[in-house]
Amino acid sequence: MTDIGFIGLGIMGHGMATNLVKAGFSVTVWNRTQSKADDIIEAGAIRGQTPADVAREADIVMICVSDTPDVEAVVFGPDGVIEGVRPDSLIIDHSTISPQATQRFASIAADHGTHWIDAPISGGSEGAVNGTLTIMIGGDEEQIQRSRAYLDAIGTTITHVGPLGSGQLVKAVNQILVVVTQLAVSEALLLAEAGGLDLDSTLRAVEGGAAGSWMLSNRGPQMIDRDWRPGFTIDLQQKDLRIVLEAADELGVPLPGTAIVFQMFRALQQQGLGGDGNHALVKALERMSGIEVGSRDG
Amino acid sequence: MTDIGFIGLGIMGHGMATNLVKAGFSVTVWNRTQSKADDIIEAGAIRGQTPADVAREADIVMICVSDTPDVEAVVFGPDGVIEGVRPDSLIIDHSTISPQATQRFASIAADHGTHWIDAPISGGSEGAVNGTLTIMIGGDEEQIQRSRAYLDAIGTTITHVGPLGSGQLVKAVNQILVVVTQLAVSEALLLAEAGGLDLDSTLRAVEGGAAGSWMLSNRGPQMIDRDWRPGFTIDLQQKDLRIVLEAADELGVPLPGTAIVFQMFRALQQQGLGGDGNHALVKALERMSGIEVGSRDG
Repeated sequence: MTDIGFIGLGIMGHGMATNLVKAGFSVTVWNRTQSKADDIIEAGAIRGQTPADVAREADIVMICVSDTPDVEAVVFGPDGVIEGVRPDSLIIDHSTISPQATQRFASIAADHGTHWIDAPISGGSEGAVNGTLTIMIGGDEEQIQRSRAYLDAIGTTITHVGPLGSGQLVKAVNQILVVVTQLAVSEALLLAEAGGLDLDSTLRAVEGGAAGSWMLSNRGPQMIDRDWRPGFTIDLQQKDLRIVLEAADELGVPLPGTAIVFQMFRALQQQGLGGDGNHALVKALERMSGIEVGSRDG
Repeated sequence: MTDIGFIGLGIMGHGMATNLVKAGFSVTVWNRTQSKADDIIEAGAIRGQTPADVAREADIVMICVSDTPDVEAVVFGPDGVIEGVRPDSLIIDHSTISPQATQRFASIAADHGTHWIDAPISGGSEGAVNGTLTIMIGGDEEQIQRSRAYLDAIGTTITHVGPLGSGQLVKAVNQILVVVTQLAVSEALLLAEAGGLDLDSTLRAVEGGAAGSWMLSNRGPQMIDRDWRPGFTIDLQQKDLRIVLEAADELGVPLPGTAIVFQMFRALQQQGLGGDGNHALVKALERMSGIEVGSRDG
């Protein structure tokens, strides 16, 4: 059996690593804050002292950290993965990072005899805990086949979307759709509120037609109830949008809607709301206007 | 049986009036361009010479014209409906117009002893022809009951959403959702194209999750095929957005996404694309960037 490494035990990685241990694999884990590994070690994982240490123990190193510089640090920084890699090993990057940086990182890894696939995830912390993540993978089919059993332990919808970097690009496409559709729902509910409409029946009147979306039907009712608990936080969403906008900039793609949402999230972070769910986007419009969605029902 | 009048036989009204005749009702029709009434007259309708003439023949006058000034002209202008109205008659306005103007029009009509309900529609020309429109109605329950049989002849989802003007407001909410979700789909497909992704499989990879929408699943494939035939034209959509933005302005509601789409549609109209379907919104981004969605598949 292949030895597995897992680096990054945050809101997503913790559940993923736990599921790999539960599935019976030999997993060496590392996290910057070591205490976050404690319960996974108790469940049977091995503690790595550094990312390099993890790489020495594993043929496949899975990474799930926050951002492009974090991936760079744990792979190429001091005591990084690359210092310990075994020959013909594989790095699976589950982080959401720059598609272009992915190409550069994979190229340097290849110089050290190590393969790379990008495999960003969606499905939220609940999906990570339940092992029901959606995984969008870019890279060589041979390496994907090699990692299939481990991916099956953490996700249910696993799609090979194209060559290296394609997973990150599809994730970017996904995030554009998520946030601009959130903008649509936010503007719509704010006008409904200001016009004195009953928000629940308005939502029901329009969700079945051309106006309909997952966001309207799932986050709309939560917004009407002013329930801002996160499926995905503004802080993480805003970080993802920075990557999307940088990737779009390099590709020459204008994204006016996405850019507006990025600025709105930035403003909400400055107001201390970075821990709210990303559907709290509407609060940016509320604070501009003094109108509050759902406040009459509260 | 109540005598019905129908004013405005355009892309929507023509099918609606035809369905009323087919349902066996006595319908007097008028259209600015008289020849558009010819086949409905052949099917059994009576030709009115003016809107006032229609009102003299009908207890319920249904109106389906383009914009707020058009409603004002056919109701309150020379030879308008109000010059011919019977006592205790009812005007049903199916046009998409200003919610605030609706209040004013209804108030003046009341001074002439005439009731008013606002009943904007969605479902496109196909829905008008098939009698499957969604109708969002604002006004008194008594007047809605009185018109129920006639509404049933033209629509299938008929919702009383609130007092007078509420139908127009819900329609505005609907249009915000439609166009800003279209912006999401446009930006997403453009990035996917520029990044070299396979558009069909990208769409399939994301449409089932939080990124999903009616617009993505229904207009996305049409955009990938570069099929710009209208379900609803840019010209009509842009007119509706002007009404939405004016209503929002009066209510103090900021709509940054909707405002951007309005400007993009305006630019496309200037380039002669007003007759394209509203999903041709993506062409505004394409012409900014030189990237064309789906062009590699063409």
